[in-house]
Amino acid sequence: MKILVLYGSSREKGNTELLTEMVLKGIDYSKIYLREKKILPIEDKRHSPGGFQPVEDDYDEIIREFLDHDVIIFSTPIYWYGMSGSMKNFVDRWSQSLRDSRFNFKDLVGKKKMYVILTGGDHPKVKGLPLIQQFQYIFDFVSAQFCGYIIGEGNKPDDVLQDQQALAQAHQLNEELRQIQKHG
Amino acid sequence: MKILVLYGSSREKGNTELLTEMVLKGIDYSKIYLREKKILPIEDKRHSPGGFQPVEDDYDEIIREFLDHDVIIFSTPIYWYGMSGSMKNFVDRWSQSLRDSRFNFKDLVGKKKMYVILTGGDHPKVKGLPLIQQFQYIFDFVSAQFCGYIIGEGNKPDDVLQDQQALAQAHQLNEELRQIQKHG
Amino acid sequence: MKILVLYGSSREKGNTELLTEMVLKGIDYSKIYLREKKILPIEDKRHSPGGFQPVEDDYDEIIREFLDHDVIIFSTPIYWYGMSGSMKNFVDRWSQSLRDSRFNFKDLVGKKKMYVILTGGDHPKVKGLPLIQQFQYIFDFVSAQFCGYIIGEGNKPDDVLQDQQALAQAHQLNEELRQIQKHG
Amino acid sequence: MKILVLYGSSREKGNTELLTEMVLKGIDYSKIYLREKKILPIEDKRHSPGGFQPVEDDYDEIIREFLDHDVIIFSTPIYWYGMSGSMKNFVDRWSQSLRDSRFNFKDLVGKKKMYVILTGGDHPKVKGLPLIQQFQYIFDFVSAQFCGYIIGEGNKPDDVLQDQQALAQAHQLNEELRQIQKHG
Repeated sequence: MKILVLYGSSREKGNTELLTEMVLKGIDYSKIYLREKKILPIEDKRHSPGGFQPVEDDYDEIIREFLDHDVIIFSTPIYWYGMSGSMKNFVDRWSQSLRDSRFNFKDLVGKKKMYVILTGGDHPKVKGLPLIQQFQYIFDFVSAQFCGYIIGEGNKPDDVLQDQQALAQAHQLNEELRQIQKHG
Repeated sequence: MKILVLYGSSREKGNTELLTEMVLKGIDYSKIYLREKKILPIEDKRHSPGGFQPVEDDYDEIIREFLDHDVIIFSTPIYWYGMSGSMKNFVDRWSQSLRDSRFNFKDLVGKKKMYVILTGGDHPKVKGLPLIQQFQYIFDFVSAQFCGYIIGEGNKPDDVLQDQQALAQAHQLNEELRQIQKHG
Repeated sequence: MKILVLYGSSREKGNTELLTEMVLKGIDYSKIYLREKKILPIEDKRHSPGGFQPVEDDYDEIIREFLDHDVIIFSTPIYWYGMSGSMKNFVDRWSQSLRDSRFNFKDLVGKKKMYVILTGGDHPKVKGLPLIQQFQYIFDFVSAQFCGYIIGEGNKPDDVLQDQQALAQAHQLNEELRQIQKHG
Repeated sequence: MKILVLYGSSREKGNTELLTEMVLKGIDYSKIYLREKKILPIEDKRHSPGGFQPVEDDYDEIIREFLDHDVIIFSTPIYWYGMSGSMKNFVDRWSQSLRDSRFNFKDLVGKKKMYVILTGGDHPKVKGLPLIQQFQYIFDFVSAQFCGYIIGEGNKPDDVLQDQQALAQAHQLNEELRQIQKHG
C-alpha cells in the first residue's frame, strides 16, 4: 500500500501539516505540496467539438503520482469553509482526466482509499462539515472509498497541538495506517 | 443599488449563465467572467513578519469592482460539488483584502446583499446544499446578507431551460431585483 | 397516481398547511394529520429474540394508507431544525415495518415519489437544509425517489403568503403534480 | 459541574449507551432514559389566545433535572439519520418551556455546556453530519455552548467496541470531562 499526501495549504509548517505529520509518524509516504505546483483552472471542454486540449502546467505530473498510490490523504486548511483554491483547481481538473485516454483514471481512482485531514480556526468541527460532505460526494462520484477524516482546530501556528481530540484521532489513524501498510 | 454578477464558469454560455441572464432580464448590471481573469491562489502570510505582499494579477481590479457594487450575485456551476476553482481562488484572496489598508473591505462587504445561482448535473438540489451552507458561512464571516439562492439542474448545454422550478424561481428573483433596484 | 399528504404540524391551518394547500389546489389527494393520531416511539427489537411485537396505536392504519399511495408529500413545520417529533416517530417506526411480514414495505416504498414541504421562522432556506439532507438519506435507504422540495419562510400565522419565492415554487409544483396525475 | 446524560435510545445497553459509558467512566453523573418516560408531542399554542396549557406527562420532571445540571450529554442512536423520536419530542417541547413562567429556561440553558454522542450503522460519520448541524442550530438558538461530539459506528450489539476512532475519542472526552468536573 503506497500512501500519498496532497497538501493544500499555502503556508509552510501550518497546523494542517503538523497534524498530518503526526498521522504519518514512522510511516513511509510520498507528499506533494500543491502550493509549489502550477495548476491552471479547468476549462470545461466537455461539449466542445475538439474536446479537452493539453494544458501546460504541473497537473499531469501530479495526477500520475496520484494514480500511482493506493491511499490518498487530502490535507488542507479550511479556507473560507472549503478546501484551498489550489486543491480545488486540482480536483476540478479530474473532469479532464476522466476523458483522457492516456490514463485509466476512473478505474484507478475507484480502487483508492481516501482520507481527509482538515484544520480551521472558526469552529471547524461544525463549520467544516459541509466540506466533509463535499468530499463524500467527490469520492462517491469516482467510486473511491472515504475511509476517515480528522478535523483539527487551530488558527495561529502550532495551535492544533492543543486540540487533544484531534491528537487522539491522529494517533489512532497512525495505528490504522500502519496496519493497512503492513497487511494491505 | 448597483448589481454585479461574478461568473465562475469556465465555459461560455453554459447553463449557469443562461439561468443568471433570466434572473437579470431587463435589469442594469455589471458582470465579471472570472475565467477571463488571472487570479493567483492566496499565499497565507497572516503570520509572516512582513505580512501580505502585492500580487501581480487581476485580483485588485476585480475586488475594486466588487466593493463598488451593492448587490453581488455569485453565479457558478457546481464543479465537484463546490464553487469553481477560479471563484474559490477569488474568495480565498479575501483573507488578504481583510488586512489591506487600501480597502475598507470589512465595512464595505458587510453592507452588501449576496445572492447565489448554481447549476449542476448530479442531483444539484441536494448535492449542492453543502455549497449553499458554505456560502452562508462565508457571508456570515463578513457580515453580509445572504438574500437568496437558486439551484438549477443541467448538464448538457441548455438543459436548465427544462428545469421549470428553477425558471419559476429565476422569474421571481427578477421581480425581486427590479424592486430592490427601484426602491433600494 | 394517488397522492397523500402527511401533515406533521401540531397546529391547525399553520403556514405549512397553507403552503401545501397551494401546491395541491385543484388536485385530488388524501391527507393525514399526524397530530390527530397516536404514534408511539419505536421500540428497537431488531436484536431481541422475539423480534418486534404488535403495538396498540394508530401506526398500522397510517402505514396502510401510506403504502396505498404513489406520491407522498411530507409536509412539516421545521421544529428545532428538524421534522416534528410526531413525524419523526412515524418514520422511526418504519424500522418495524421493514420486518413486518404483513406488508411488502420495502418493495412498495421503493416505487414511491416523495416530496417535502417545510416552513420555518429562523432562516429556513439555509437552516432547513440539514433536514433536506436527512430526507434524502431516508429516501435513499428505502430506494424511493426524492422528486422535489419547497422551503417557505413564516413564523406568525399566514406569514408564508409573503414569501414570493415559496409561492412561485408552490405554483410550479402544482403544475408538475397535475401533469403527474394526468399522465402518470 | 453536574453532568446529565439524556439517553434517546429505545434499546437497553445498545451501542450508544456503551460508548457513552466509556465517556463517563469514573465520573459522577445523572442519567435519564427517555424511553422510560412519557413525553407527548408539542402542541404549538404560541399563537393561541390562551397560550400553552399544562400537559400530563413526564416532561416537567425531566426539564427540571435538565435545568439543574451544567453539562448535558445528548446520547442517541441515529434513527433514520436523526435523533430518536423520543428525544425529538423532548426538544420540541422546549418551545413551551421558553414561554413557561415557572422556569427561567432561556437564561439557564444559555449557561450549559452541551455534548452529543451518536452511533449509527449506515456510514454515520458522514450521514450523521446533518444531525450534528441540527444540534448546532438548536444550541445556537438557546445560546448554549456546543463543546464536542463523538460519532461511533455500530449496528449489531457491541459493534461500537470495534470502532477504534470512536473509542479514542471517548477516552479523550473522558479526560476532558474529568478536568471540567475538577476545575469547573
